[in-house]
Amino acid sequence: MKSLDGTTSPRTTVADGRRSAIVETAADLIQERGYHSNSMEEIAESVGLRKPTLYHYFKSKDEILFEIHNEMIDLILARQDARLSQDSTSRALLLNALMKDIIELMESHPAHLRTFFEHHRELPDRYRQIISEKGMRFRGHLMASLEDGIAAEEFRDVDVELVALAVLGMCNWTYQWLDAGGERSTTDVTEGFWRIVMSGISLAQNDAPRTR
Amino acid sequence: MKSLDGTTSPRTTVADGRRSAIVETAADLIQERGYHSNSMEEIAESVGLRKPTLYHYFKSKDEILFEIHNEMIDLILARQDARLSQDSTSRALLLNALMKDIIELMESHPAHLRTFFEHHRELPDRYRQIISEKGMRFRGHLMASLEDGIAAEEFRDVDVELVALAVLGMCNWTYQWLDAGGERSTTDVTEGFWRIVMSGISLAQNDAPRTR
Repeated sequence: MKSLDGTTSPRTTVADGRRSAIVETAADLIQERGYHSNSMEEIAESVGLRKPTLYHYFKSKDEILFEIHNEMIDLILARQDARLSQDSTSRALLLNALMKDIIELMESHPAHLRTFFEHHRELPDRYRQIISEKGMRFRGHLMASLEDGIAAEEFRDVDVELVALAVLGMCNWTYQWLDAGGERSTTDVTEGFWRIVMSGISLAQNDAPRTR
Repeated sequence: MKSLDGTTSPRTTVADGRRSAIVETAADLIQERGYHSNSMEEIAESVGLRKPTLYHYFKSKDEILFEIHNEMIDLILARQDARLSQDSTSRALLLNALMKDIIELMESHPAHLRTFFEHHRELPDRYRQIISEKGMRFRGHLMASLEDGIAAEEFRDVDVELVALAVLGMCNWTYQWLDAGGERSTTDVTEGFWRIVMSGISLAQNDAPRTR
């Protein structure tokens, strides 16, 4: 969004919009048919561009795959940074927000999410490394929040890495079963999962949210 | 294993062994290169069979993909059935065992597991329905165990489906990060995750296992 401020020329904005449209269409195609089954030609056709125009934006399919991953991780890191800069929140509420950030992607970016989880091994090494470092940053922030919660005596003295992996597991796994328009809303699922985790780690026995 | 009892002819056993070898090799190939990138020819070559011999065992790649899924879900259902038939176990220990059954697959069947989670949408409808029904049976048993635990006043009155989804999420997600030969053993991860869940749902506050 910062790229849309006064310093950005309208021309760049149009180009950015077109890049985003390409990335979104490609994510949908990959979700439908897998990565190797789609050619640059088919991506160009689906997004309504001529092939040379597509190559003007992305030199290869690998570059598009990288951009799907990069958009996704940048988006969630930006949300996380915004959460972490709010000093006033309790660690319990912060954890709720971090979980919500992941689960809500099921509504806004389902195809990005599936590509991110299932096709990261297909990224060329140099790209995979960039994404992997950003992923570690995300997990590091989550672990730091848990450590802060322990230091502030909000949370019990838990195995922070394992709790983070459990939280990421339950949240990330929603991409396999959560139907964005279905019976359970992303908000309900977030609240439910957060209560399970909080009952598991909170020191405040009486205040611990019930799992029902 | 029952197929290896006295009623099975040696000939069938050899055929079964060869089928298993094909399925295992195919799972490895899919894990390495995706589903669509592998042909029956390449599978035959990798398993050391001539193509007509491969077709003697499997009529199509789809059949092999189905067999990977089916072996996996049958294996875990068989383990689950064995667990559930042991009446004497507490629901807490049963839950531990059910979680262990999933996480241990990371050691014994990593390629099956990844294929199961990432390529089920590529199954033809008739196959997908069979696998999906067995998957529902697995989840149903897990939910029934939680309900039994609530009825027996071992567990709090939790949202059983959501707890089951959280448990499956944290356990299944290990296929994305757990290095079978790495720092954390499957046993450690199972114990850690189980403690998190138990602290979250157990009614026995004093007996609740600590998450560290």
